Formats: sequence, structure tokens, C-alpha cells
Amino acid sequence: MSASVDPDRTEWDVIVVGGAAAGEVAAQYATQFSGLSAVIVEKELVGGECSYWACMPSKALLRPVEVRANAGDLSGLGVGAVDAAAVLGRRDVVVNHLDDASQVRWALGAGIDVVRGRGRLDGARAVVVTGPGGGERRLTARHAVVLDTGSTPLVPPVPGLAEARPWTSRDVTNLHEIPARVVLIGGGVVACEAATWLRGLGAGEVTIVHRGSRLLARNEPFAGDLVADALRASGVDVRLGVSAVKVRRDRVDDPGIGHVRGSEVTVHLSDGGTVVADEVVVATGRTPNSAGLGLESVGLTLGPGEPVPVDDHLTVPGVDGDWLYAIGDVTGRALLTHMGKYQARIAGTVIADRAAGRPLDDGPYSVHTDVVDDGRVPQVVFTDPEVGAVGLTEAEARDRGLDVEVVEYDLAQLAGTYVLRENYVGRAKLLVDRSADVVVGATFAGTGVAELTHSATTAVVGRIPVPVLWHVVPSYPTVSEAWLRLLETLNAQRNAATVRPRRG
Amino acid sequence: MSASVDPDRTEWDVIVVGGAAAGEVAAQYATQFSGLSAVIVEKELVGGECSYWACMPSKALLRPVEVRANAGDLSGLGVGAVDAAAVLGRRDVVVNHLDDASQVRWALGAGIDVVRGRGRLDGARAVVVTGPGGGERRLTARHAVVLDTGSTPLVPPVPGLAEARPWTSRDVTNLHEIPARVVLIGGGVVACEAATWLRGLGAGEVTIVHRGSRLLARNEPFAGDLVADALRASGVDVRLGVSAVKVRRDRVDDPGIGHVRGSEVTVHLSDGGTVVADEVVVATGRTPNSAGLGLESVGLTLGPGEPVPVDDHLTVPGVDGDWLYAIGDVTGRALLTHMGKYQARIAGTVIADRAAGRPLDDGPYSVHTDVVDDGRVPQVVFTDPEVGAVGLTEAEARDRGLDVEVVEYDLAQLAGTYVLRENYVGRAKLLVDRSADVVVGATFAGTGVAELTHSATTAVVGRIPVPVLWHVVPSYPTVSEAWLRLLETLNAQRNAATVRPRRG
Repeated sequence: MSASVDPDRTEWDVIVVGGAAAGEVAAQYATQFSGLSAVIVEKELVGGECSYWACMPSKALLRPVEVRANAGDLSGLGVGAVDAAAVLGRRDVVVNHLDDASQVRWALGAGIDVVRGRGRLDGARAVVVTGPGGGERRLTARHAVVLDTGSTPLVPPVPGLAEARPWTSRDVTNLHEIPARVVLIGGGVVACEAATWLRGLGAGEVTIVHRGSRLLARNEPFAGDLVADALRASGVDVRLGVSAVKVRRDRVDDPGIGHVRGSEVTVHLSDGGTVVADEVVVATGRTPNSAGLGLESVGLTLGPGEPVPVDDHLTVPGVDGDWLYAIGDVTGRALLTHMGKYQARIAGTVIADRAAGRPLDDGPYSVHTDVVDDGRVPQVVFTDPEVGAVGLTEAEARDRGLDVEVVEYDLAQLAGTYVLRENYVGRAKLLVDRSADVVVGATFAGTGVAELTHSATTAVVGRIPVPVLWHVVPSYPTVSEAWLRLLETLNAQRNAATVRPRRG
Repeated sequence: MSASVDPDRTEWDVIVVGGAAAGEVAAQYATQFSGLSAVIVEKELVGGECSYWACMPSKALLRPVEVRANAGDLSGLGVGAVDAAAVLGRRDVVVNHLDDASQVRWALGAGIDVVRGRGRLDGARAVVVTGPGGGERRLTARHAVVLDTGSTPLVPPVPGLAEARPWTSRDVTNLHEIPARVVLIGGGVVACEAATWLRGLGAGEVTIVHRGSRLLARNEPFAGDLVADALRASGVDVRLGVSAVKVRRDRVDDPGIGHVRGSEVTVHLSDGGTVVADEVVVATGRTPNSAGLGLESVGLTLGPGEPVPVDDHLTVPGVDGDWLYAIGDVTGRALLTHMGKYQARIAGTVIADRAAGRPLDDGPYSVHTDVVDDGRVPQVVFTDPEVGAVGLTEAEARDRGLDVEVVEYDLAQLAGTYVLRENYVGRAKLLVDRSADVVVGATFAGTGVAELTHSATTAVVGRIPVPVLWHVVPSYPTVSEAWLRLLETLNAQRNAATVRPRRG
């Protein structure tokens, strides 16, 4: 779809640079009840990484694998191999065949304009857009400019890696056939989820090479351990504590895929071993897209890979007039779509409130902004077992000097999990801040925890006292009874601590 | 397993009459940190209805049906018929082949004794147990007697129904082969869940006959409507607003199943129609097992089918000395296992506290007991779509005179449901008490809501203000984003209500 705006128009109330999920939400929240006008400047597809190259296609690939794994763990269900071509076809539908027409329609329907091109700041409230044809256009904002330019996968400086045409998260979610042999470098969410769908969709040899000692290192250790166990049981070769030191692909010259179809890549490892594969996936983190944004034109200088700094109203400090905002991955706060959207709700609300001269304390999103990234970020990893977590891990809590009580429970002991799978594996952990008697962290691993996580987010953000949580009754038989067992374990620990030992 | 106690022992601190899930929990909570002794008196199986004849076997039957339905709604997964015999075999494992040895082991391991037989009160703190052989034994309690005798399915007085040897919830969860034709009388949870598994496991003709105009009438209307639509789409004949007026089975004389194998039952309906089936299932509610408990020996008289009255400490009022308690279905409060267990946690804690002379306000369960049944009961119905609800329905809220804001959302609009099933159907509804600005009711229908329900229970019982709920961020892409959409819809409604309409 071509630019959907009067080509001579140059002024809007709000300009959003980057029309990914967060950018769309910021434009929506800034305009929806305010009468303000907004334009989204997007160089690729409106809807962004998450819609086309990350969350949505990955979930489309993972869901059939998950359902098949569950079916395989229940008597009475015949389970054949997954038809990978059919799943890839469905993935194509989920990403709208990489056509953003429906997202553009949504924007226009919401009264938000769309301009195609790459935007960069050009002084106060001004954005220069370089269009697809190379032409430039200068837009100005009456009230606010919002940066939502996202992040890009990091390719670590391993000799030969870049030359081997590695896949990034984009490529591995948008793959068109399942490689027979894949090696994934990294041990975070992308590596774990991609290994799950690659193996589930029929890749014969899947290897994870991770320099850390555990997968999913930002989570409680048991989460990564359970995922590693399950990946190994499914046939994935998980190599921990090992780095790629050199990579070589034998032939590189196909213009389409970057290398000759059928060519091999060899990854040499720090322990002297090698892995030979057809594709290598780099999943070692992302860097904020903060370069080339013209920040110097408004007096800001960032080092390479440095995120755009923001305050708790998502306003960029040090820019006069509080007109510059940043949201999403480019802020480096929490590289998660739902957190970017949350930041966008705050930014959009703050923009509308400031434009109307309202104080920043009466809108639903202009208060409580301390929770943006204050150790309360939820995340779900769609591996098998799923991992859902919110708030602090035990290590983070201790780093902050919090006095926490730690409770763990084997989820396989629950009636609700016994009927979910015949060989259920799962675990839960709760951290209770002793002084406030509230939950400050929760981690669940197992089938059925994706939605359960939100109860923990509710408890953590709502700061519900433990004596009240006792009365939040989980339905029987659900996985949610984890709460009951965790609280009972906590109570038993407290009772044990207060019982005076007998003298012998 | 035979009685596991010294046959001459006659005195314990606590006697629990009825060893179902709630009874076990009451014994556990009364004894676990107190040093008190307890005995469970059980006439059938320790573990009770839920473990052997209700929740657990029904979920064992429903889970494969659910997974198959999900698989059938995803590209790439071959789906054959469910192997009903294998599923029934797994169900047998889940109910331990109707052997309660493991439950008895649990009790003994927890220091709780078990006496087999039917218990009845015989004056203050005394229980007479009629053993399996007919002999009687009189037990006395130093501190408390707890009644947990449950409930029994009602068979409505339809001419010929009792003579046609209808199945109750017990029979339909413990069936040994799938009848070709089944008619279910009733439209509540049992009827809807049983129709789901009967049809899913291969019953050719399944008919629901319900005199009400909607299924699941205690829930928000849309829940029953969506379940009815889905049952019909799966081939179940759902007949609403119709009663059974006469039932006839052609031959009744098989000593095992009560009727001749292969005999037909005909159900005549109030609209003049008939349904012919092999089995008829009665699912028209339950009546508390309050008769024959010897309540008159302690000065209490109940009418037929009347529940045992209790106060918010689960103590039976009007009995001197606060030693008699009742929990679970026999109280008629909320006929749900998890609510019975919750009542049991309160009762057990109160018993221990009273025995120790402690005030009833410092244990986790002796405070906040107003929530026992004050419109905050959660329930999950394991149909497809699942239904999860907590708190009040809109109708209940209005009956109580609450000024509620009502918000609804089509769950199929969520990214998180779009990747869950290709033809997702679901809906959510929230009730917000305007004066307190807290959620007082929530209902979700759709795949993936069973665990989501606990977030609503957390919000409702925790009374989290709506301005705080705005900051409880759901992970992307999960069904939990229903919360975000519901709150956005609420906000839009509030904005619309405060915008002054233009003149002209």
C-alpha cells in the first residue's frame, strides 16, 4: 500500500517514528480521546517485528508442536508427524504474507496517517523522512515525536560467522523449508523456542551452542534446566558452557538465500568440538536501533549500541519542552512486545494529557509509572515446558538486598497437572518479601502456565498481602492450584521456623 | 484396606465424618501444626466423590477430547478418532481402579487415622460408626466433629425415570463402554461436560434435554450460548426449553447394569417429541447428604434436603460449645471441590486455634472468612470452549443492587487466541463496581481460559483497584491480553460517557 496521506501535508500533532506494535499503540493512545492528529513513519511494515518476524510467526510454528507434544503424552490419541508445509502455510497466513495492508487499514480507521520511509530527527519537533524512492520530506509535530525504532539482532564477532550468512530470529521464524541440520548459537528465548519448533517440525539434527552454563539465564535456574532436559529428550543436542570460536561455510553465492543450497556450515567450538549443519542461527541478543535517528540534531549523543534514555513518562530527558518520547526496544528497558505496548500506552496518554494541559496524575496510565521496569516485567516462553515469570528472581532479589522467603513446588504433584499430561514435568517458585509480606517474584515452568502467569502478575503488581492470597481460591483441578501448594509450603516453612527445637 | 486403627481406641481430638477431599483437608489442617489427633470416618473410599466419581475421572475423559479438538483446529496435525478404550483405561488409572489405598497411606502418613463405616452423631462430641459388617462403634472427640458427607444426585420425579435405571454423574464418569445413543437430562456443568466427552469419545447420538432456555444458567448467558453452539457443531442435539415428562425402558432385568444390555429407553418430552437412547443420564442437580447424620441427637432438626447450616467459621450454630463443624456440599454453600477444600482449611485452622485457646484472627484462614461464599466463588467448566468465572454475574450484581459497569470483549480478536486455534471462538465479560472501582465479576469462555480464571479470582478477592489493574501487563501473545482489551473497552465507555455531545 502506498503512502496514505496528502503528499503535501507536513504537520501533525504527533509523529511516531517506527510503526511496530508499540508505535501503533502510542499513536492510538495519543489520539483516541484527544482530538490530536498523528502520523506513523514506517520504513518496512506497519505492525513491525512482532507481527511479521517474531512473536506471531513463532507462535504459529510453536502451537502445533505444543499440541502434538500434549497429544503424544495422552493415551488414546494417535499422533503422526507434523506436516511442516501445512504449518509453514499457516504461519504465512498469520503474518498476512508479509503484507501490512490490514494494519494500515487499522491505522487509517483510527484516524492515524501512515507515511512510508525512514524517519530521523531534524531539530526540535521535526522529522525528515527518506522515502522508498530516496526522496526526502520534512514533517513537523505540534506536540510530540515518539521514537519506536526497535532493535536488531546482534551478530557476535566470531571469525567467519557473518560470512557464513547466519540466520537471525527473522529468518528462522520466516523459514520456507525445515533444514535437516541446524545449529543455534545462544541460549535465550529465541534459541530455545526456535530449537523447539525446528525439531518439532522435523529438523533431524538441532544443536544449541551456548556459552553460559544454563539456558534462559534471566529466569530462575530450574526453568532453563527443565527446558534443557526437555529439548534433550526431544533429540536436541544442547551444549552448554561452550562458545563458537570460528565458523566456515563451504560455498556462499546463491543470491536468494545468501549461500549455495546444500552447502554446509561448520561451527568450531571452544572445547575443540565442531558442529556441521545446513544453517546456523544467531540468537545472542539484540541491540537497540538508536543510530541514525538524528538525535544529535536535538543535542543528544549516544555511544554505539546505547539505548535512548527515557524517564518514567517515556520522555527523553535533556530535550527542552518534553516533546521527545521513546518506547519499545530502542529504550533498552525490557525487550518484550507487551512492555513496549505498555510504555506506548503511558507515552500516548502523557502526550494527550500534556497537550490538553492536564496534570499527569489523573489518567489511567499517567500514574503508577514506577512499574514500567521496576522488577515487575512478566514474560512467557513458549517452549515445552512453557516458562512464565514475573518480577524478581531469587538472585535479583538478593542483589537488591531484599529479605525474601523462597518457596518451591513440584507441579507434577497437582491433581490439575495429572490430568493434563501423563508425564507432566513442571515446577514453581515464589519469592515473598518478608517485610511487606507480598510476592515480589514468581516463576512457573510446565504445560498450562502461559495463562497462569497473569495471576502472578496480578498479585505482584497489585501487591496483594499474603494473608489475602490465602483466600484467592484456585479452581479444582487446574494448574492454578500451584498457588495453594506454594502458600501451604510457605506456611509450613513459617511454622517450622517458629517451632522451638526441643533440647536433646 | 481394612481399618487402620487400634480397634479399641474410642477417643480422638477431632472426628471427621466423611473422608472426601474436604474432609481430608480439614483433618490435615486441624492436626498439622497443633499436635491434635484426628480420625476420618469413611463409608466408601477415602478421597471421595471428586477423586473417584467426579472431577478427576471427568477431566481424564475430557482432556484427550480437548487436545484432539485443538489439533483439529490447527493446520499440519493429522487427527484420527480418539481411541475410547485407551482413554477409559487411563481414566481407570486416574481413579486408582477405585482403590483408596494411596489416600489411606496419605492419611496415615499425616498422622490421621481412618475408620471404615458410616458415621452419625450420637450426642455431644460423639459419633457412632456402623461398620461394613454392621457392627457399631462409638467414638468421642475431645475438641471437634466435622461433617463432610457431601451430596447425592437428584433424580427428578419424572414418571418412569427411576425405573429406567438412569445413569447419574457417577455412572457417566465411570462408564466402561461408550453408548451409541445417550440422552442427558439437565443443562448444567455435568450435562455439558458429559455431552462433550461422550460425543468426543464416539457416542453417535448425544442429546441434551434441558428445561431451561440456556445451558450453564448460573453463568453469564453468553457462556451457555457458546457451549451450546459448540456442542451442536460437534453433533450434539441440544434441546432447550423442553422437559422430560415420561421415561420408559423396554426391558429392565440385568443385575449388573440394571437393565438388559441392548434395551432402549424412550424419553417423552414436554413438546411432544421423543428421544430414543441406550442410556439416560440424570444431571439435574444434587441434594446435600444431611439426612441420617444424627443431628437430632444434638438438638438440630433439618427438613428433607436441607443443608447443614454453618457460620463463617464453618461451625454449626445452635450447638453448645462450638464443637460441631460442617464443610463441603453438605453445607449447600458452593458445591465445588475447591470451595469444600477452602472451607476445610478454615474449619481445620479454627479447630486448632480454638483448641489452643488462640483468638480467631491470627491464622491465615481464621481471618477474611467473609469470602467463603460472598459472591467470589471461582469455577471452571471443562467444556470446549472452556468457561471460567469468578464472582458475580451481571444479573446477580443487579439483584444485589450494585451499580456495575459492564464490559465485554470478543476473545477471537486477540493475537494470543489467533495463534491458539485457527477458528477461535470466545468471549469475556467484566463487572466493575462503580463505587469502589474494583472488579466484582469476571467470565471467560474459550480455549485457554481455565488458568486465566485465577487472575480474575486474584483481582476480585484482592480487590485491586482498576487504576492499578491498568498496570498489570499481560504477556504477549497470550489469552491474558483479554484483560488489556477489557480495560481499554471500559476506558472507552467511560470516555464516551463523559464527552459532551455536540449540539446541532
